Amino acid sequence: MLARYLPILAWAPQYRRASLTNDLIAAMVVTIMLVPQGMAYAMLAGLPPQAGLYGAMLPLLLYAVFGTSRSLAVGPVAVVALMTAAAAGTVAELGTPGYHLAALWLALLSGGMLLIMGIFRMGFIASFLSHPVISGFITAAGILIAASQLRHLLGAPISGKTLPEVIPSLIENIGAISLVTTALSAAVLAFLLWSRAGLALLLQRFGLSAPLAKLLGKTALLIAVLASILVAWGLGLDRFGLAILGDIPRGLPEFGLPDFDLSLIQILAAPALMIAIVGYVESISIAQTLAAKKRESINADNELVALGLANLGAGVSNAMPVTGGLSRSIVNYDAGAETPAAGAMTAAMIALAVIALTPLMYYLPRATLAVIILVAVLSLLDFRALPRTWAYSRADGAAMAATMVVTLLIGVEQGLVAGVGLSLVLYLYRTSRPHIAVVGQVPGTEHFRNIERHKVECDARVFSIRVDESLYFPNARALEDRIVRALAETPELEHVVLQANAVNYIDASALESLEAINERLNAAGVRFHLSEVKGPVMDQLKRSHFLDELSGEVYLTQFDAMSALSPELTRASVEAERTDTRRVLA
Amino acid sequence: MLARYLPILAWAPQYRRASLTNDLIAAMVVTIMLVPQGMAYAMLAGLPPQAGLYGAMLPLLLYAVFGTSRSLAVGPVAVVALMTAAAAGTVAELGTPGYHLAALWLALLSGGMLLIMGIFRMGFIASFLSHPVISGFITAAGILIAASQLRHLLGAPISGKTLPEVIPSLIENIGAISLVTTALSAAVLAFLLWSRAGLALLLQRFGLSAPLAKLLGKTALLIAVLASILVAWGLGLDRFGLAILGDIPRGLPEFGLPDFDLSLIQILAAPALMIAIVGYVESISIAQTLAAKKRESINADNELVALGLANLGAGVSNAMPVTGGLSRSIVNYDAGAETPAAGAMTAAMIALAVIALTPLMYYLPRATLAVIILVAVLSLLDFRALPRTWAYSRADGAAMAATMVVTLLIGVEQGLVAGVGLSLVLYLYRTSRPHIAVVGQVPGTEHFRNIERHKVECDARVFSIRVDESLYFPNARALEDRIVRALAETPELEHVVLQANAVNYIDASALESLEAINERLNAAGVRFHLSEVKGPVMDQLKRSHFLDELSGEVYLTQFDAMSALSPELTRASVEAERTDTRRVLA
Repeated sequence: MLARYLPILAWAPQYRRASLTNDLIAAMVVTIMLVPQGMAYAMLAGLPPQAGLYGAMLPLLLYAVFGTSRSLAVGPVAVVALMTAAAAGTVAELGTPGYHLAALWLALLSGGMLLIMGIFRMGFIASFLSHPVISGFITAAGILIAASQLRHLLGAPISGKTLPEVIPSLIENIGAISLVTTALSAAVLAFLLWSRAGLALLLQRFGLSAPLAKLLGKTALLIAVLASILVAWGLGLDRFGLAILGDIPRGLPEFGLPDFDLSLIQILAAPALMIAIVGYVESISIAQTLAAKKRESINADNELVALGLANLGAGVSNAMPVTGGLSRSIVNYDAGAETPAAGAMTAAMIALAVIALTPLMYYLPRATLAVIILVAVLSLLDFRALPRTWAYSRADGAAMAATMVVTLLIGVEQGLVAGVGLSLVLYLYRTSRPHIAVVGQVPGTEHFRNIERHKVECDARVFSIRVDESLYFPNARALEDRIVRALAETPELEHVVLQANAVNYIDASALESLEAINERLNAAGVRFHLSEVKGPVMDQLKRSHFLDELSGEVYLTQFDAMSALSPELTRASVEAERTDTRRVLA
Repeated sequence: MLARYLPILAWAPQYRRASLTNDLIAAMVVTIMLVPQGMAYAMLAGLPPQAGLYGAMLPLLLYAVFGTSRSLAVGPVAVVALMTAAAAGTVAELGTPGYHLAALWLALLSGGMLLIMGIFRMGFIASFLSHPVISGFITAAGILIAASQLRHLLGAPISGKTLPEVIPSLIENIGAISLVTTALSAAVLAFLLWSRAGLALLLQRFGLSAPLAKLLGKTALLIAVLASILVAWGLGLDRFGLAILGDIPRGLPEFGLPDFDLSLIQILAAPALMIAIVGYVESISIAQTLAAKKRESINADNELVALGLANLGAGVSNAMPVTGGLSRSIVNYDAGAETPAAGAMTAAMIALAVIALTPLMYYLPRATLAVIILVAVLSLLDFRALPRTWAYSRADGAAMAATMVVTLLIGVEQGLVAGVGLSLVLYLYRTSRPHIAVVGQVPGTEHFRNIERHKVECDARVFSIRVDESLYFPNARALEDRIVRALAETPELEHVVLQANAVNYIDASALESLEAINERLNAAGVRFHLSEVKGPVMDQLKRSHFLDELSGEVYLTQFDAMSALSPELTRASVEAERTDTRRVLA
């Protein structure tokens, strides 16, 4: 029982010295990325830089105890930071205490929801979010994130949360662009883009081994940060309009529950649920991808619990909503992290950095952080997904396009709601039209097939129909409509037989529909029969009064039904076969 | 083309004299019910009495031209009137011009939505509303309707829209109850309840034929109205605290679009959609039930168009939202209505009544109208539906209970949203867990069956899995989880085979899931194969790059797959069979 909720009990007792070394190296590399990324994502969320660093401490410790992934690097991530900014921005002005309070409650609420989903094994809620919707959402979010950083990249007061707000603001402020800021941004951007491949190659040329060069290549962020601090400090660029980070409080965060405000919580509940689900879906897919490489497994319920506790931890330590991030998790995996202990070590190193290094960050240009965000979101953009999905399935393509357009033009929450809503509607549209075949007897056999595809024999007095789908509320009406139409079209009709061999389930809506069909047929003097009903479905029907009220019979096979209801037809068919057989024998 | 949208062209040219007589009689009986019911439902909706009468004029004419049911009686109905009151009450105070404006826009908006759904054949939207939700909603609405009439039945200022509002208000006003009003209500209620069976019997005893007696029995409403007018006028009961109807404007309604107000329309859009869908679902099920009795058919798209135009007609003639009503439709059918012309005649008679009879209504007690509402909603209450549904299916029972509880305690719109939301969640929950079987070879055959149910042979290096469901977003993750788990549990794994014989469709989410499975297996050095893929699914997969990236093969049958991947096993099995056969032969 304890082990069910404490995956740490599975790996900690067997922890070996070799793992310690590997975990330490991985933690160091991740920390070097996480210090600038944490501050950058805090800036993206509209929070003070330390919120991002605090988000890389207690949450990581909690994930190390409760998580099942050995490679996942938890902490602030770009998409969740954007969603935090969108939600907090609806309740308070950027930079006010109310704004940070909202961010903390978003962490607490989404953490609580994830925890509840984990305890009650409700992870299926994430299945509402189809792949096309999440993929379209993340690309659109990436564009919005890049747009939101224009103000820092160009040093001009460009504002707005959606493209129709940002673009006019950009045009309006084109004269206010700071050349110094733009030049620094361009230089850092060029270095970081080059360093993706170039840095490791350069290090190799200096004689380092390929794996070590690759590892040191990950220090590009650190180099960019240190170099731009030196340049900004050395040239005194803050006097030429370059925005710098300024004072960051030293030391550990204050712990405690933020102020309670019921009306705030009510407003934030819906966005918190979206943050929880988007964060979970992203995190679990990264964790599963990395685990599969080592043939390890991830427990979805444990992941919900661990991410939930990590966010609760973020909420009580003045941080921001967190989840598993793609880029740092890959780095963590590549650097050789073997156990969740690597995450705990990362947290410890971040704590050291917060205690010792924050004064060094005073001159860190905000533009450098904006470039770090920009480079991170470039990997999120996948513009080819839309034509690819559209070519595969119109419905999925439409859901993806709607998600992207609404996210870009109206907002992130609305975009998700539009995408989920449209995919549900299109899904119901498809299931509301199940394949319904009118069947007839294949001459000389006991088989019954679709009259539109096969040459079959029918009796106009008996209408046999097969539904290739379970019967439930989205399609309950379709069968009713089809049978009622047959009733109106066929004056000589005496029997209707429903061949139920493909029906795995009948819900209450479909049961009422069957009752209505039975009643309506009965009123018109037509008897209603079933054939080939599966065992579990029969058990289910026996729990209702349907079988008592059924005007006809339940036949074991469709052939039995036709033999009873239209003996002439089946006899003729069997005769024909005998004749055929005789001919063959003769 | 014209005939597609004008069902009147199908019956009007063959209209016969005999039909005229039958339609006229039916129209007369329906009119006698509709005058008091129309005024009563207008009162229920919080509108002046004439709004209900106007709702029985132009909308009926439009339905007669565009509708396909020969028996449906359109007009104001109780549940839609309650929903109108709930929605209009959120934007304006009862009795103000803004309130009636809101009701008119609800009619126009729901009419426009129905029309669009009809033209674009979007009737499937109604399938969101499962039977348990609609049934629970209607019972709860019936209780709320009865509660809302307490003020008129008891003559006390009892207010509130939900039970937690009405019950304290009732207790508070218990001293303000008017004895005269309560006595009149009780007398009218007793008469109407008795008349359901008693009046026809009494008339038969006076020598009338049974059918005629039954028909005249429907005049009970008229008798109650006339008697209570006489009593109220004769005894001057209005001076003793009895609320009477007062002046009703004589003559036809003024036609024209109500004032345009964009913000009002935005608020009313969601409730209008609910009114449209609830009204449509109720109406079409009545129409289909009655049509089936005569082996006639109803066209769902035409019904959407006809109800849409009827509501647009209501909106431009100072009326209220309308739909097909249960009780009057049955009376219309029983009285012998043969064509939609009966509806047009009803409209004409109502117009005559509005021109000639409204002064007579001056002394009509409001309590009488409230009793008429009360008697009408008694037929809506079905308390046994909940235990019956719960016994049949826990999920459906929970959706029904949630709909009822939320409707009664919070409100009608919230109740519908809760019910629809919960049934979708529970539905996704079920489909998110498809039946997944690990399969093995039945010894001596080419069949592969569930290893948990059959004695089968397996090869630990090959993991064969069968999904008994199409693959789409609610269950995309389930297969992924199962295969990833097998990968973690089976160190010797070399091949995974997905037997896809039950898969009818693969959506984009499931495709990405298959791609992820392929990638993850590939990263772990395991090949991924498919077997028994259906033709249409194969065509679909060919439109993606999946088959190019697939690390394994697509086999025609599961046996082919195993023969290729585990020749020893299949050979051994075939050997075993040969031995068996030889033994049998020997």
